Amino acid sequence: MKNNIYKIIELTGTSSTSIEDAISQAIKRAGKTLKNLCWFEVVETRGNITKGKIHHWQVTIKVGFALEG
Amino acid sequence: MKNNIYKIIELTGTSSTSIEDAISQAIKRAGKTLKNLCWFEVVETRGNITKGKIHHWQVTIKVGFALEG
Amino acid sequence: MKNNIYKIIELTGTSSTSIEDAISQAIKRAGKTLKNLCWFEVVETRGNITKGKIHHWQVTIKVGFALEG
Amino acid sequence: MKNNIYKIIELTGTSSTSIEDAISQAIKRAGKTLKNLCWFEVVETRGNITKGKIHHWQVTIKVGFALEG
Amino acid sequence: MKNNIYKIIELTGTSSTSIEDAISQAIKRAGKTLKNLCWFEVVETRGNITKGKIHHWQVTIKVGFALEG
Amino acid sequence: MKNNIYKIIELTGTSSTSIEDAISQAIKRAGKTLKNLCWFEVVETRGNITKGKIHHWQVTIKVGFALEG
Amino acid sequence: MKNNIYKIIELTGTSSTSIEDAISQAIKRAGKTLKNLCWFEVVETRGNITKGKIHHWQVTIKVGFALEG
Amino acid sequence: MKNNIYKIIELTGTSSTSIEDAISQAIKRAGKTLKNLCWFEVVETRGNITKGKIHHWQVTIKVGFALEG
Amino acid sequence: MKNNIYKIIELTGTSSTSIEDAISQAIKRAGKTLKNLCWFEVVETRGNITKGKIHHWQVTIKVGFALEG
Amino acid sequence: MKNNIYKIIELTGTSSTSIEDAISQAIKRAGKTLKNLCWFEVVETRGNITKGKIHHWQVTIKVGFALEG
Amino acid sequence: MKNNIYKIIELTGTSSTSIEDAISQAIKRAGKTLKNLCWFEVVETRGNITKGKIHHWQVTIKVGFALEG
Amino acid sequence: MKNNIYKIIELTGTSSTSIEDAISQAIKRAGKTLKNLCWFEVVETRGNITKGKIHHWQVTIKVGFALEG
Repeated sequence: MKNNIYKIIELTGTSSTSIEDAISQAIKRAGKTLKNLCWFEVVETRGNITKGKIHHWQVTIKVGFALEG
Repeated sequence: MKNNIYKIIELTGTSSTSIEDAISQAIKRAGKTLKNLCWFEVVETRGNITKGKIHHWQVTIKVGFALEG
Repeated sequence: MKNNIYKIIELTGTSSTSIEDAISQAIKRAGKTLKNLCWFEVVETRGNITKGKIHHWQVTIKVGFALEG
Repeated sequence: MKNNIYKIIELTGTSSTSIEDAISQAIKRAGKTLKNLCWFEVVETRGNITKGKIHHWQVTIKVGFALEG
Repeated sequence: MKNNIYKIIELTGTSSTSIEDAISQAIKRAGKTLKNLCWFEVVETRGNITKGKIHHWQVTIKVGFALEG
Repeated sequence: MKNNIYKIIELTGTSSTSIEDAISQAIKRAGKTLKNLCWFEVVETRGNITKGKIHHWQVTIKVGFALEG
Repeated sequence: MKNNIYKIIELTGTSSTSIEDAISQAIKRAGKTLKNLCWFEVVETRGNITKGKIHHWQVTIKVGFALEG
Repeated sequence: MKNNIYKIIELTGTSSTSIEDAISQAIKRAGKTLKNLCWFEVVETRGNITKGKIHHWQVTIKVGFALEG
Repeated sequence: MKNNIYKIIELTGTSSTSIEDAISQAIKRAGKTLKNLCWFEVVETRGNITKGKIHHWQVTIKVGFALEG
Repeated sequence: MKNNIYKIIELTGTSSTSIEDAISQAIKRAGKTLKNLCWFEVVETRGNITKGKIHHWQVTIKVGFALEG
Repeated sequence: MKNNIYKIIELTGTSSTSIEDAISQAIKRAGKTLKNLCWFEVVETRGNITKGKIHHWQVTIKVGFALEG
Repeated sequence: MKNNIYKIIELTGTSSTSIEDAISQAIKRAGKTLKNLCWFEVVETRGNITKGKIHHWQVTIKVGFALEG
């Protein structure tokens, strides 16, 4: 970890399959516009229920990435 | 989301396989006696250990459902 | 649960596959030097990201075990 | 406050007008099926947004009521 | 702990004598209508004061019990 | 904000009309005996219920004021 | 709620009239540059005091919005 | 509870015998200089240990009392 | 308090009689293997219930002790 | 630590140089009117920024002192 | 503080010398792309250790700045 | 960060000079008996006061280190 400054953003990923997949989706989306993603941290795990079954997992994470120069 | 009132209850689901399964078990059980389940939120993830291995995942969730009239 | 005293330690397990596996790794490691592991509780779920993908899940747990005599 | 036992339930009231109204709606609904409501406490204040405007206030409260005999 | 689902309710017990007694009163009352009480956890310890002395201890607990089938 | 020292006190204001009014009442009362009130922060929003209706809003705030010399 | 990714930002709205108005101001401002605002959640309610009266309500909220493609 | 304003102060009571006694000591001391004590709430329970035994229980409470006119 | 370094460990004491006794049991056990115990702090108060009655109080504490040289 | 009762107050110290100095300023000011100051605990570390630089550190602490007789 | 809307971002500053320097680095970096920085608040203080010594202080702050028009 | 398991311990370092020094003292002491120290995190910053001045800074940290094989 160099002498950098990091920015931390908050994202909610959704998935119909698992908690891990919801997190991966959020990180994949972040990677489209941000370079240097470094770490994440789970903030909240929720979901919505349709007809008595889990329809989507909704996992909110913080993602840290290094700011350039 | 209509102009409803929701009630939130707290349940602990258990499973020998995964966190997601423990949550699904709790929601399935709630659906036996409650209609209109809308969302859930994970409160705590624990487990008991037998002979050095995870025996049961115990995941506590809050479940919200719409009250009728 | 007998009239025992329990000690609680904090561990971070890591895994490239899942949250459950990171927790299992930590408990397996604890079992190498400690007997009578009883329960665990998830404290924090994080991970590091390499080239835009989750490289390791890092799950911090508390593990309780019975102290002898 | 007599030597009673109280039960505390969690409700989410919704309103398109104000935080106070969302809370009042939840308490009014609780009063339909419960006697002896004594106090409430705000747990969370949220809302959903439609077309850039607040559509519903969603206020989660805990409500305490005295259990009879 | 079998492969059950547990429900968790919140109660406030009161007592003029001690914290332990307030908790016991709440559990005794819960046992009148619920079977299979398993555990409790203290959430808050308060009290009201009359003429400069503690009049009632008010201890709020969460109580977990196994749901049947 | 000068190079001052501030003291922070905790007050509960009550009102039969609104959350904002309960806060204003508490600040007005504080201003009777304290000068240099600077800021407040809401700590807790509660209320008591009489005959199924909100009787008083009870809002606890922290109030900061500058200490003189 | 589709299979989207959401971003959550934190804003402080100010108002001389009410808590609700401070929140509405923050959401209105967010809507100038962001589409697809979905929900908000109150994080902190504060205010500054001038001459013993509330001068501005300062309400910090988190606002979630759907990221496109 | 009348339309009053309440002030809340924080005290630590100590006792060599019990948690309840430490709290009672703090309230008794508060009553020497303050009238209209209404309620208390436990914030923290600690103690110091001398020669392997609990020497003093140290219980921190918040105490609310009504401000006059 | 000398210019020492302290280590803090977490223990759960159990007792069928009282909260204070559960804490004392944990400290007594800690004293068997550790010297220089200095303070403790209550982290969590729970218990298990058998046949509708409290069977064991389970109190988790942090205990601080001075490390030698 | 004798069998005393302690009162805990909350102060915000400010300094243009460091966190430690802001805390020391608050304690020095408290010592002007209070005897028997015993301990402090940091609650919050903030600051204001002017022209892109830290202008003042603002550190909020709790300070405990022994009440006499 | 005018009738503005503020945005709050989260940054981690790093420094090999002190907590204050890590915070200053983060604010200096923020000032490169943002005008009207107003305040900051410390969220977390961490660091990494290399060969038994602190290698970098890592301090996470929230920074608030006024949004224009 | 390799596929390791980490243990986290809690220490309080003390210093008469600064927060940073108290933390460094704790880490230096940990390094006497533990290899592979990786990171730390500040949990609490306190101090004791003698004759109206800060006598010792007492900073509690969590320290993580890699467990071998």
